[in-house]
Amino acid sequence: MGRPLEPGERVLLVDSRGRRYLVELAPGGEFHSHTGVVDHGALIGVEEGTTVRSSTGARYTVLRPSLADFVLRMPRGAQVVYPKDLAPMLLLADVHPGSRVLEAGVGSGALSLALLRAGAHVVGYEVRDDFAGRARANVAAFLGEAALDRYRVEVRDVYEGIDEHDLDAVLLDLPEPWQVVKHAERALRRGGTLVAYTPSIAQVMALREALAGSDFEMIGTQEHLLRTWHVEGQAVRPDHRMVAHTAFLTHARLLGPVPGGLKAQAPLP
Amino acid sequence: MGRPLEPGERVLLVDSRGRRYLVELAPGGEFHSHTGVVDHGALIGVEEGTTVRSSTGARYTVLRPSLADFVLRMPRGAQVVYPKDLAPMLLLADVHPGSRVLEAGVGSGALSLALLRAGAHVVGYEVRDDFAGRARANVAAFLGEAALDRYRVEVRDVYEGIDEHDLDAVLLDLPEPWQVVKHAERALRRGGTLVAYTPSIAQVMALREALAGSDFEMIGTQEHLLRTWHVEGQAVRPDHRMVAHTAFLTHARLLGPVPGGLKAQAPLP
Amino acid sequence: MGRPLEPGERVLLVDSRGRRYLVELAPGGEFHSHTGVVDHGALIGVEEGTTVRSSTGARYTVLRPSLADFVLRMPRGAQVVYPKDLAPMLLLADVHPGSRVLEAGVGSGALSLALLRAGAHVVGYEVRDDFAGRARANVAAFLGEAALDRYRVEVRDVYEGIDEHDLDAVLLDLPEPWQVVKHAERALRRGGTLVAYTPSIAQVMALREALAGSDFEMIGTQEHLLRTWHVEGQAVRPDHRMVAHTAFLTHARLLGPVPGGLKAQAPLP
Amino acid sequence: MGRPLEPGERVLLVDSRGRRYLVELAPGGEFHSHTGVVDHGALIGVEEGTTVRSSTGARYTVLRPSLADFVLRMPRGAQVVYPKDLAPMLLLADVHPGSRVLEAGVGSGALSLALLRAGAHVVGYEVRDDFAGRARANVAAFLGEAALDRYRVEVRDVYEGIDEHDLDAVLLDLPEPWQVVKHAERALRRGGTLVAYTPSIAQVMALREALAGSDFEMIGTQEHLLRTWHVEGQAVRPDHRMVAHTAFLTHARLLGPVPGGLKAQAPLP
Repeated sequence: MGRPLEPGERVLLVDSRGRRYLVELAPGGEFHSHTGVVDHGALIGVEEGTTVRSSTGARYTVLRPSLADFVLRMPRGAQVVYPKDLAPMLLLADVHPGSRVLEAGVGSGALSLALLRAGAHVVGYEVRDDFAGRARANVAAFLGEAALDRYRVEVRDVYEGIDEHDLDAVLLDLPEPWQVVKHAERALRRGGTLVAYTPSIAQVMALREALAGSDFEMIGTQEHLLRTWHVEGQAVRPDHRMVAHTAFLTHARLLGPVPGGLKAQAPLP
Repeated sequence: MGRPLEPGERVLLVDSRGRRYLVELAPGGEFHSHTGVVDHGALIGVEEGTTVRSSTGARYTVLRPSLADFVLRMPRGAQVVYPKDLAPMLLLADVHPGSRVLEAGVGSGALSLALLRAGAHVVGYEVRDDFAGRARANVAAFLGEAALDRYRVEVRDVYEGIDEHDLDAVLLDLPEPWQVVKHAERALRRGGTLVAYTPSIAQVMALREALAGSDFEMIGTQEHLLRTWHVEGQAVRPDHRMVAHTAFLTHARLLGPVPGGLKAQAPLP
Repeated sequence: MGRPLEPGERVLLVDSRGRRYLVELAPGGEFHSHTGVVDHGALIGVEEGTTVRSSTGARYTVLRPSLADFVLRMPRGAQVVYPKDLAPMLLLADVHPGSRVLEAGVGSGALSLALLRAGAHVVGYEVRDDFAGRARANVAAFLGEAALDRYRVEVRDVYEGIDEHDLDAVLLDLPEPWQVVKHAERALRRGGTLVAYTPSIAQVMALREALAGSDFEMIGTQEHLLRTWHVEGQAVRPDHRMVAHTAFLTHARLLGPVPGGLKAQAPLP
Repeated sequence: MGRPLEPGERVLLVDSRGRRYLVELAPGGEFHSHTGVVDHGALIGVEEGTTVRSSTGARYTVLRPSLADFVLRMPRGAQVVYPKDLAPMLLLADVHPGSRVLEAGVGSGALSLALLRAGAHVVGYEVRDDFAGRARANVAAFLGEAALDRYRVEVRDVYEGIDEHDLDAVLLDLPEPWQVVKHAERALRRGGTLVAYTPSIAQVMALREALAGSDFEMIGTQEHLLRTWHVEGQAVRPDHRMVAHTAFLTHARLLGPVPGGLKAQAPLP
């Protein structure tokens, strides 16, 4: 028997056509759509996966949102990092419970959520005060207040330096990641990882040039394409449209200074 | 200052061309390659990111392997699930610290490693005894003996049933996942997730048909393409060759029985 | 000096934002848009590449459309075969001046146009009379009346048989291409080529099964992905959205009967 | 009844595993492989699609090669333009019977073959004398001596200028296409097309900058991905490996000078 849904929780309402709505449960609250009203009272206390009816008889199923569902529907100002990129960024940065991570360019907190969910301790640098506040609110909403113990967002510019030391990973989602390379060299432990998310290949070129002149090695750049399929009886085909591009991911590990250099392309299969 | 490398640890040796070798450190041990010998004694006790010389003067840098490095180089019998698929499988299954997961078709343990690293408690069903043993050994080698507290592999056939209850996720890497749908309905909690990894689209078709007649909803199928780039001065282009296909990922969440059905395609963006 | 634009010609008007409009030039005609009116009189008699002004001062450049421009903007009922697929279909069918081709499922005539442009003699089978008429009109509009000498569309069902003999190629864009395999065996010359355009992989499976039991060999299936790039100063990246799927192309060549069979997958690199 | 194979023709021998060999038929000639010998005498005079036996009993089927088969197996020095790119290049350049085309960077003649096959008149500029000779030989071998009436290769450097005028298209496969933009402006007719094939996105950036300062408009850049499928019974999946990258195709049309400019990105769908 599952844990019943409680007031204050964010839940996902799924209609009969598969559309998903993120709702914060509140006593006396109502969810309004073009198919009528669903009283929050019908949702509070029930188990995930329960189906209810709106005032016009339309069906809605209620579920706790997955991380991916939440990230795509949470309040946001900037473009969020999509789940298709969140997953490989965690893997490239080798994040695990206890990892000490700096994230610069926090935005609405999508990457913070993924890092914290994976058990990391996260310091975020974000130049916009409103973004920093929203990121904190999104983290608390999805992971609960307790997660804030492992999360600190500072309103500051990472181009001017990093105060932390012995970090396991530095993740960057900002316009000029090459400005951070020298700071990251001092902030990461040996063997630590830098991962940068950049929409333009021209950004990749500038970053790669900065990395080539640094103590980072095992440098690679990659992009991830997600292709969804339509499967319905004999109609079995990729969906007609897809997101063709979000960003390039560039990654590197910090080694000690190597006399004569060791630079080599080493793409991760 | 990082933790020094110890005997018994698996480390990654990286040569000057970026090739990577997985080595278990042993007092008195030697790493042999066509560029001569590296004594383990030169590696034990040093910090990650240190560069040493082989007997012929070739440079090697020593690092702790990332999960992705380890999975691609650990002992294995069957084809492993590639990191490009491990990452989205964790996201689709919404795995997090404390998740209770059944994995069927354990193989060499690549997916087990990723699940345990993310903090899950994992029960594995595997029909081949030798695979089960290798998976356990790989888990212990990368995550340490302590991780075995959250990992149990049983030599048995998931087509015949699942004993666990109230699971958060069931992950399948086996030939006929449609045989598991009815068992997964009983083993998952409401709202729990099924994720299946299948190389052939014909397997997807059979699985989707089984799911369409079940209490699973929010069903989708997707594939992930990883494209690595070559970036060297003015030569900036995707690598010439890529892995074009590994498998399709089909995912669904378990709802309660819905009178009249709620089936709808809902691809995760 | 180029040939001046004449009444009756289809031309492309391109506005200052790159949007393209297909217009048939007529004495006294007018092109109306939200930026005012362009008199056809200002276009007739000028050279391609000339820029004119609308009544409100908006700029339009006039050009003869390429085949790709025409196909995407011509009158059409059904979904047309996209240029990204037209090009490889011609190559797979090895079409050249003088080729004798049957096309079944003519639709609006996009493939007919490409075949005729490449110099082929084309017989089209099309079950819908209105489609057949539109295809003929589109061919005459783009290639001129003279092209109709090499083009005949019959309103008939190719599933019931093919009257032609010694064809170089049979191209199919219809729901059940497997129904045509036996007819194509009799209609093609030895060494001739069959190419089928099918949206669903389930269609591919049925077609491949029919081909496996036929005298066709050198069988392959492929899909073509077109990814366009945005290049503007330092913003250099793939466009955010793309057509992820149109159809799978299956191709085969007719050999003589082979005792014992010769079936082998032979993908074209 | 097909035209019998003649001495001097290039034919394709296909073995029972689908492997293809390009052979020039000669009286008294022999084809040698690890499965024995096939006498050319057994091939001359037979119809396409005939199956013969080697001295050890291995089966070979003989066919005339398609353009794609020939291009991939003809004698070559440099890397050829692959069929997957030849097809869209013809479409982008809107090549048709009678088109007047300059091709610079002829290499082994793959693109020349495709252009001539489509009915164009082609002038090739090629700096290497040996390449020019091989290209001519490949054209004669596949299309026959008569095709040389529409084909002239000059050993010269297109960076130094173009003598031709009123061309319909200029196609470039060379390292610095931006050096050709000014020459192409004078050599093309109004409305004519420039298409450049460049492996590196850095080349695209330099070319696009040159085009932005020219009379070319309707500028786009695209890449084409070919994904082949394995279809055998219930094993239905993309092939495991693919060519992930060959080149980017950049295309533009020449307009008259536009006061104030008209530059706009206009990707071809």
